[in-house]
Amino acid sequence: MTELTYEQPLNEKTRSYLRLEYLYEQLNIHLDADHQHNCFYPLFSLCELTERCDFRNDVIKDIDKQLQQLKLWLKNPDVDDGQIEQLIADLCQSRDELQHPGRFGQELKNHRFLTAVRQRFSMPGACCSFDLPQLHFWLARPFEERQQEYRRWIAQFSPLLEAISRLLVLTRGTANFTPQTAISGFYQGMSEHPLELIRVKIADHLNCFPTISGHRSRYAIHFVDFTAHKHTDSNIDFMLAACR
Amino acid sequence: MTELTYEQPLNEKTRSYLRLEYLYEQLNIHLDADHQHNCFYPLFSLCELTERCDFRNDVIKDIDKQLQQLKLWLKNPDVDDGQIEQLIADLCQSRDELQHPGRFGQELKNHRFLTAVRQRFSMPGACCSFDLPQLHFWLARPFEERQQEYRRWIAQFSPLLEAISRLLVLTRGTANFTPQTAISGFYQGMSEHPLELIRVKIADHLNCFPTISGHRSRYAIHFVDFTAHKHTDSNIDFMLAACR
Repeated sequence: MTELTYEQPLNEKTRSYLRLEYLYEQLNIHLDADHQHNCFYPLFSLCELTERCDFRNDVIKDIDKQLQQLKLWLKNPDVDDGQIEQLIADLCQSRDELQHPGRFGQELKNHRFLTAVRQRFSMPGACCSFDLPQLHFWLARPFEERQQEYRRWIAQFSPLLEAISRLLVLTRGTANFTPQTAISGFYQGMSEHPLELIRVKIADHLNCFPTISGHRSRYAIHFVDFTAHKHTDSNIDFMLAACR
Repeated sequence: MTELTYEQPLNEKTRSYLRLEYLYEQLNIHLDADHQHNCFYPLFSLCELTERCDFRNDVIKDIDKQLQQLKLWLKNPDVDDGQIEQLIADLCQSRDELQHPGRFGQELKNHRFLTAVRQRFSMPGACCSFDLPQLHFWLARPFEERQQEYRRWIAQFSPLLEAISRLLVLTRGTANFTPQTAISGFYQGMSEHPLELIRVKIADHLNCFPTISGHRSRYAIHFVDFTAHKHTDSNIDFMLAACR
């Protein structure tokens, strides 16, 4: 049985983190295999998001909060000190890397090739050789060369993206999945503490996906039948984790 | 030695044809291998272009012109009748298929899943599971199933795209490549007849790409050094075909 995990952020910050994490995964997929011009979609999306918002202060504030929490854990005799110390070291490293001056992706903004490609990229079918002969030239270069260059471009964002990955690991670690049932396809939950993220795991064969809404400590999950395009009336068994 | 071919349309019609041909190639790439959500980029671009313009009348008019020309060729004792007859049969088939009523891609416009995905698709990083849980569900289905569905979506555009491919084969067939030299990276050409398409073939190792401009019977080619991002002053040997 295959299961799929869906996640819903319950605040704007986590929403941004998940979006950036998703783009980071996409960048790495294009680093592993040659998908030609498709590699530019996540790169340009990342440029756009980091131009709109710097994220740096949010992330540093979050790291500091986590470091404080982890140091409290160290005083607890039941926890594995080695693991906590590793987490602290990783977060401190991320924090240092984030202090680097200049906006993320700044260099790419001044990159002539990327700027030319980006300008036309969102137009439908605009990657023809006559629209962008320089792209046509670049794409014909050996994948290893393009890969190296792409790696350098991604590296511009790595301090931010690595830090966010580390923070999301911690957020996801705050709750384990527990079995639940959505009666007539509907489930409602609340928590005493503000939540960051709702995670739902559901078996593929049920042919349903969840639409999750919520804010801070309250959330609702509707299961939608994919084929019928509408809310299902069946009772749906799923796994739930409400992360803080 | 590897050579790259660049093409420049000299009128709006050929510009559209090349763009649609490019999207057709992209669609087929995604049919051959699983590139996850990337398959939607050319599909939605095609939807957008065919919503803006029907193309059908242009293509039918072009087919009729070509059929007239081919029938003249049949009277020439030096040509291979079998080949010409095959071309005529192909074009007649395309013409019949284009008579089908309704706009290309109309069914996709009413497709609930595609409409939902398309609405959010152009936003940066908008393919996260929380933006589009239905896409997350769809992408987890076996590639063979998705492939079949994708094939049906593409089929909506096939009469148009097949016809355009056939017409472009004929256009490209009107001229052979001949060796030319761009003195100080510049070449200017003109023709007695209106031209549809300029084709330039150049060796990769020259590290140059052409920027071609022109209209109807006149055109100019500038070669740009990829690394220096500027017009090259070297004499550049290349192959040229000016197609009618």
